[in-house]
Amino acid sequence: MLKAAVIQQHFTADRAANMASCADLIGRAAAEGAKLIVLSELHNSLYFCQSESVDFFDLAETIPGESTEFFGAIAKRLGVVLVLSLFERRAAGLYHNTAVVIEADGAIAGKYRKMHIPDDPAFYEKFYFTQGDLGFAPIATSVGKLGVLICWDQWYPEAARLMALAGADMLIYPTAIGWDPRDTDEEKARQLGAWRTIQLSHAVANALPVLSVNRVGFEADSAGVGSGILFWGNSFVAGAQGEVLASAPIHTDEAIITAEIDLSCTDRIRRIWPFLRDRRIDFYGDILKRWI
Amino acid sequence: MLKAAVIQQHFTADRAANMASCADLIGRAAAEGAKLIVLSELHNSLYFCQSESVDFFDLAETIPGESTEFFGAIAKRLGVVLVLSLFERRAAGLYHNTAVVIEADGAIAGKYRKMHIPDDPAFYEKFYFTQGDLGFAPIATSVGKLGVLICWDQWYPEAARLMALAGADMLIYPTAIGWDPRDTDEEKARQLGAWRTIQLSHAVANALPVLSVNRVGFEADSAGVGSGILFWGNSFVAGAQGEVLASAPIHTDEAIITAEIDLSCTDRIRRIWPFLRDRRIDFYGDILKRWI
Repeated sequence: MLKAAVIQQHFTADRAANMASCADLIGRAAAEGAKLIVLSELHNSLYFCQSESVDFFDLAETIPGESTEFFGAIAKRLGVVLVLSLFERRAAGLYHNTAVVIEADGAIAGKYRKMHIPDDPAFYEKFYFTQGDLGFAPIATSVGKLGVLICWDQWYPEAARLMALAGADMLIYPTAIGWDPRDTDEEKARQLGAWRTIQLSHAVANALPVLSVNRVGFEADSAGVGSGILFWGNSFVAGAQGEVLASAPIHTDEAIITAEIDLSCTDRIRRIWPFLRDRRIDFYGDILKRWI
Repeated sequence: MLKAAVIQQHFTADRAANMASCADLIGRAAAEGAKLIVLSELHNSLYFCQSESVDFFDLAETIPGESTEFFGAIAKRLGVVLVLSLFERRAAGLYHNTAVVIEADGAIAGKYRKMHIPDDPAFYEKFYFTQGDLGFAPIATSVGKLGVLICWDQWYPEAARLMALAGADMLIYPTAIGWDPRDTDEEKARQLGAWRTIQLSHAVANALPVLSVNRVGFEADSAGVGSGILFWGNSFVAGAQGEVLASAPIHTDEAIITAEIDLSCTDRIRRIWPFLRDRRIDFYGDILKRWI
């Protein structure tokens, strides 16, 4: 059994305050016994992708760099594995949306660069982030092989499957998703339902636990053009049959969601529902096409 | 808008009675205005795959054959498109689990041979069915291009994706799935939840409506070895965001479930959530491997 925590947070424009808040919540999660702690997407800042401004590239940082040092020291002190989500500056004019896994000794265990980059009104990520070039590789840690993916990746069964085939023990999705406040309640419900369904389905298809963490609260468009985003929280931990083990009690508030994950479930579930046995890889070739 | 119906049924060992019951329910669905009517998996018989007996090959039939003639006449008389699920005898020693789509003029529009064949206690399908060799090809009809898949296929995101990439307007799953009566209520709930989640996720991932129809009722193992299967019904029609439009009101009873499907939703949803745009086909190659 692995006790894991996902941390659902508000963020502000104050980077130091965000990092201090993360540190505080990590400490509380560790005090509850969590050995794996996951932060939400781009947790050091507001979700700046609501508009396109060259100034926001100032928020990027190198890996290793300030955040890996800061959070590495925390991981080492508390003896926990951390999943960070950073705005990576790789070179001038070359930036990624990158998750970094910190081992319990404070070292960098590995990183994942977001492979699927969204771009739609209020989520202008293609301006900021070059699509990842590290592929879908689980990151080995003392608590298992972590299939870390990021936000928009969650809509792609291919990403989850590739992580599973590469031996991931669980799937982890740091996320920043929310509603356009102008949408109807019905549309909001459909979007939230779709978001839960697709992530739970990756658990089902691959018999893997899934951890998903989303930020909360309203963030205005700093450019004053859009109507802002109401980030919908709803962070959760699910078991290998897609059953929700724990979820945020109040979807507008910060929360530390902890759950005991039984890593032996994957083997047991794959015995009763052996999906991997029957994949028709002889007929899947067209998946590599854009359109058939 | 397309009015569609899925027909959730009990079956018996009496083939003629099953076919007559199908005909009756199809007539009632058509009277309610349905233009597309889907029957459940292997609707002419009990679910004989609970045991392995060479005698059950007597249940198989050719395509075209008795059933396509019988149901073709009904489709023509009522002016409806039908999705049948038959035990196909292709040659001596060569059988398939095959869905046949009948056009509203009574002609065979196309067929799909189940590609993923299960085999686990009480579901010994690998004994009876050769895996399909027609690939994942939607069937063109007067009510749209039907992405017909069958039961075990529902666990495979690859199958749904391939149908979507090949231009399917909706996904259709005739199914025969149920509980081992010895399982706990908690395990039953997890299995049913997983089954709903994975199918709704295909709607979400591909922005396509999904129609799923399952048989109901307890069927004993005719060999007297197993403890039988309690088929769980729960047939449903979902929209292109994975929202349930209609589902069986009582999960142990026969039911005609109808829903108005808005086929323009796919275009609208794919504009706001353009998943197909961002697929990383340059990094999906390992999906064609059994294990990485």
